[in-house]
Amino acid sequence: MLPFSRVTVIGLGLIGSSIARAVRQHMPSVRVTGFDADPSVRETAVRIDLCDDVADTAGTAVIDADLVVLCVPVGAMGVVAAEIAADLPADAILSDVGSCKESVIEAVRAALPEAVFVPAHPVAGTENSGPEAGFASLFHHRWCIVTPPEGTPGIAIERVLEFWRRLGAEVETMEPAHHDRVLAVTSHLPHLIAYTIVGTASDLEEVTASEVIKYSAGGFRDFTRIAASDPTMWRDVFLANREAVLDMLQRFSEDLTALQRAIRWGKGDELFDLFSRTRAVRRSVIDSGQDDARPDFGRSHD
Amino acid sequence: MLPFSRVTVIGLGLIGSSIARAVRQHMPSVRVTGFDADPSVRETAVRIDLCDDVADTAGTAVIDADLVVLCVPVGAMGVVAAEIAADLPADAILSDVGSCKESVIEAVRAALPEAVFVPAHPVAGTENSGPEAGFASLFHHRWCIVTPPEGTPGIAIERVLEFWRRLGAEVETMEPAHHDRVLAVTSHLPHLIAYTIVGTASDLEEVTASEVIKYSAGGFRDFTRIAASDPTMWRDVFLANREAVLDMLQRFSEDLTALQRAIRWGKGDELFDLFSRTRAVRRSVIDSGQDDARPDFGRSHD
Repeated sequence: MLPFSRVTVIGLGLIGSSIARAVRQHMPSVRVTGFDADPSVRETAVRIDLCDDVADTAGTAVIDADLVVLCVPVGAMGVVAAEIAADLPADAILSDVGSCKESVIEAVRAALPEAVFVPAHPVAGTENSGPEAGFASLFHHRWCIVTPPEGTPGIAIERVLEFWRRLGAEVETMEPAHHDRVLAVTSHLPHLIAYTIVGTASDLEEVTASEVIKYSAGGFRDFTRIAASDPTMWRDVFLANREAVLDMLQRFSEDLTALQRAIRWGKGDELFDLFSRTRAVRRSVIDSGQDDARPDFGRSHD
Repeated sequence: MLPFSRVTVIGLGLIGSSIARAVRQHMPSVRVTGFDADPSVRETAVRIDLCDDVADTAGTAVIDADLVVLCVPVGAMGVVAAEIAADLPADAILSDVGSCKESVIEAVRAALPEAVFVPAHPVAGTENSGPEAGFASLFHHRWCIVTPPEGTPGIAIERVLEFWRRLGAEVETMEPAHHDRVLAVTSHLPHLIAYTIVGTASDLEEVTASEVIKYSAGGFRDFTRIAASDPTMWRDVFLANREAVLDMLQRFSEDLTALQRAIRWGKGDELFDLFSRTRAVRRSVIDSGQDDARPDFGRSHD
């Protein structure tokens, strides 16, 4: 039994277009309708045959759906929820893919207090954006965290979990507030740090921008990948998950200051101890199947 | 004309063993002698047939060489230089692969004031260590920076440059002090930040270590790769390039504080502007051939 038969995806960027492709691959009998606020994205979606149907408005996109997935930046979730309010079928399940959940739940509830809303967050992505960046296998073996607010009917939660399982994801449920703390450290803080260091490196006077690029294989290039992620999406994430991000940032800054002090005072043992500990974390990431074991992410050296 | 005919590699870790392999591949007539202070590494080198000869002491390893390349942690360069002092042929050229140059030049000069020393730094590597982690193509299309101190004979510099060209690298010469500033930002600071964030994430009380691992695909896993680099090597780099690293760290901290403030006060435009700027840096890194253009470093999603 398929969990849904008519899925609407609002927002056809990397994640939305990957969902559309994955549904067509894994559940080919499901009808997929898409909508994007940007007319050029809608045109591209039609041209590359992303969905069975691309609607002209958010309202018409949801009119016949049994699942609606909001795949827009978290700061736009409330606006989009309001746009579909008049047309969302009463028995449809509403979901989303936002990287933070408390603020999204609040925004969607304000616009659609009666809707059955099952928030979800597939922890997957690449640094590319837009309808042509998506691919059907993006969610394979990645975690999708579902964060149902209290009172969400169990059957609705189970259907959304099953939807993500069908797309190849592992699923987990979590309290929205805890989700936002966990992702602040595993995703939001790393992005913030990467954006910062790439900015710092670009602003030096004595080291030219071309030198920074040229010698980036020493480590810097890894950070540029994350710092190439969608600017609108990430601006919204930091503003929406502000408290958790600032708290993690505070801890990071304290640890960085301690390391700075160890370097200044030549405390090699402290450095060595930390660097040995972090090496073990890498092994766990690989053992858990969350990264490629091949050196250098499997980058080609030929 | 081959630049050298008898090459000795002291230190058979990732870089040293890659040089041995690359010489054998690109200059098969050259005799390669290896030495490592660790007897088990020497045994492995013999077992995997890494060199033509594995010596029992650093002195015997260099006795017949026309090029000696020191591939040990930067903090050990002076010690190794002293160990080979009695046996280094007067016409041999001495080189190294250290990630910082001023301190290495000082240490080698103190031990070997008469040697012709042409310091070099191939900007290449992976997170793996040891004689079995190396591979012959590691230096292909990567930069090797040669930092000859004033007074180094031009012919010696040219021979070392040609050696690296033969291994597939692009070559560049640079003042040692400038090298140390450039690498502080493109390599040392990124490693320091990665080590810190992986440490911070492992130390949280409310988010468990297993959650950090499980949801690491949101960005954190990229940092764990860099933070898995060799602890001894990196301890030495931070202590040896202390001033440049602390200076870059200071700039980074200022920029991070500015971003922290932008988040706290909800200044979305500031965030968006930075995030757009950093995206352009990524494009330059790819256009310059210093990283894989495939999304997510070309990681497999199947």
